[in-house]
Amino acid sequence: MNNRPIGVFDSGLGGLTVVKEIKKILPNEKIVYLGDTARVPYGTRSKETIIKFAIEDVNFLLKKNVKCIVIACNSVSSVAVPTLKKQFKVPIIDVITPTCEFIAKNKNIKKVGIIGTSATVKSNTYKNTINKLNKKIKVFQNEAPLLVPLVEEGENKSSFTYQIVQKYLKPLIDKNVDMLILGCTHYPVLLPIFRKILGNKIEIIDPARCVSKYLKKYLKEKNLLNDGKISFVDFFAVTDLTDGFLKQLKIFFGKYKKNNLVKISLTK
Amino acid sequence: MNNRPIGVFDSGLGGLTVVKEIKKILPNEKIVYLGDTARVPYGTRSKETIIKFAIEDVNFLLKKNVKCIVIACNSVSSVAVPTLKKQFKVPIIDVITPTCEFIAKNKNIKKVGIIGTSATVKSNTYKNTINKLNKKIKVFQNEAPLLVPLVEEGENKSSFTYQIVQKYLKPLIDKNVDMLILGCTHYPVLLPIFRKILGNKIEIIDPARCVSKYLKKYLKEKNLLNDGKISFVDFFAVTDLTDGFLKQLKIFFGKYKKNNLVKISLTK
Repeated sequence: MNNRPIGVFDSGLGGLTVVKEIKKILPNEKIVYLGDTARVPYGTRSKETIIKFAIEDVNFLLKKNVKCIVIACNSVSSVAVPTLKKQFKVPIIDVITPTCEFIAKNKNIKKVGIIGTSATVKSNTYKNTINKLNKKIKVFQNEAPLLVPLVEEGENKSSFTYQIVQKYLKPLIDKNVDMLILGCTHYPVLLPIFRKILGNKIEIIDPARCVSKYLKKYLKEKNLLNDGKISFVDFFAVTDLTDGFLKQLKIFFGKYKKNNLVKISLTK
Repeated sequence: MNNRPIGVFDSGLGGLTVVKEIKKILPNEKIVYLGDTARVPYGTRSKETIIKFAIEDVNFLLKKNVKCIVIACNSVSSVAVPTLKKQFKVPIIDVITPTCEFIAKNKNIKKVGIIGTSATVKSNTYKNTINKLNKKIKVFQNEAPLLVPLVEEGENKSSFTYQIVQKYLKPLIDKNVDMLILGCTHYPVLLPIFRKILGNKIEIIDPARCVSKYLKKYLKEKNLLNDGKISFVDFFAVTDLTDGFLKQLKIFFGKYKKNNLVKISLTK
């Protein structure tokens, strides 16, 4: 057993969807969350810059004495994992590997569609990881760079958001995909729109669920689960205290107390 | 006469519209431009964070031996000018003051509309500055947070961009404004859409023009104009080398040479 917290980080508020899934299946675990809201979004930046930011994120979480780190950000998971695993000894679980393992095992899947940020799609990490495990699955990708700002601005019910999602999904629908991976932690907020456009025949995969299940299995195997005997409060750190983050935090975790949310600086 | 360069900075590529206007009326001046593309956008961040970033931007330009600094970013101009003027001796010209002075002098204007980022609108800097100079002008504002990402993604001709602009302008049109200020340096890229929605009766003001004219007058009065006797090349620095910046730089300044563009770090 190990009662130290689990560190989770993301570029902004999107990673809260991952925290929500983790809390569902691991309610005894204490979470330390870092959202780099002063530098969100990551997905439009260069690989070099994303790696630099990710190293700073991990260093912050290590100071919080975490027992393992979950990268809730698809863009970081796409381009920074080899560097992070080389540089740090702490167990690091990215959001992409468990999702690809889940998909590769499914024998009914022939064509998978992925939408994500520019960084995630350009890296080809989803495509390469799936095909390493199962060569038979055809993978199609499309960049969806405007969805993060639309979610951050709360436009999840606007007609133009519907049109923009439609634009991004069209090339994947045209390929007759069996399944769509929401390759960015912001996208589950738009699930009703995805469902409406895709209908019931195309399965929608939220990587937050895959990574949570993987995390539970990992902690169990390594005997790192919290014994549930101590009380604790989760801890949220952000690099900028924005209205959007506060709003989302309240929607997801209504009961959070103000003193568990702090603004921190990653540089200097 | 003074042959040192003029420093211009912005959160990202939007400030290039200001550089373009400056070069039009001051072709002899050498420009050192800083675009903080690793942390764009500024307009959705807190006041405190914008001030921190702006201080780092000014410090970089000072190392380049600039004779004065133009803040091409409306969000910085809205919230950071008093702090910057207190902390630095270099002459600092913001993009808002010259625009408000130009408007306040116009006796035909009764109602002015402004669209800008959240930071710009929430600060009320345009409104307060105009009304300090001319109490009779009524000022109406609306936040337009999605326009920066739409411009950065090159969606300036998409039908959903038209709908989003329409949504942001409607409350101002309903107030029967005589004039609209494009309170963000990204917005001039969407001028054809603004013109189509507003028709010919509502004048559109691009602050880049106002600040360029003000800069020329200022340099002349202080005897700081370049004598035009030395040849030079402009210098562009960015904190992240993104496809969007390179594309925009080429559109605006086709002739730029690769070695005038460098990637720099503002932290550490």
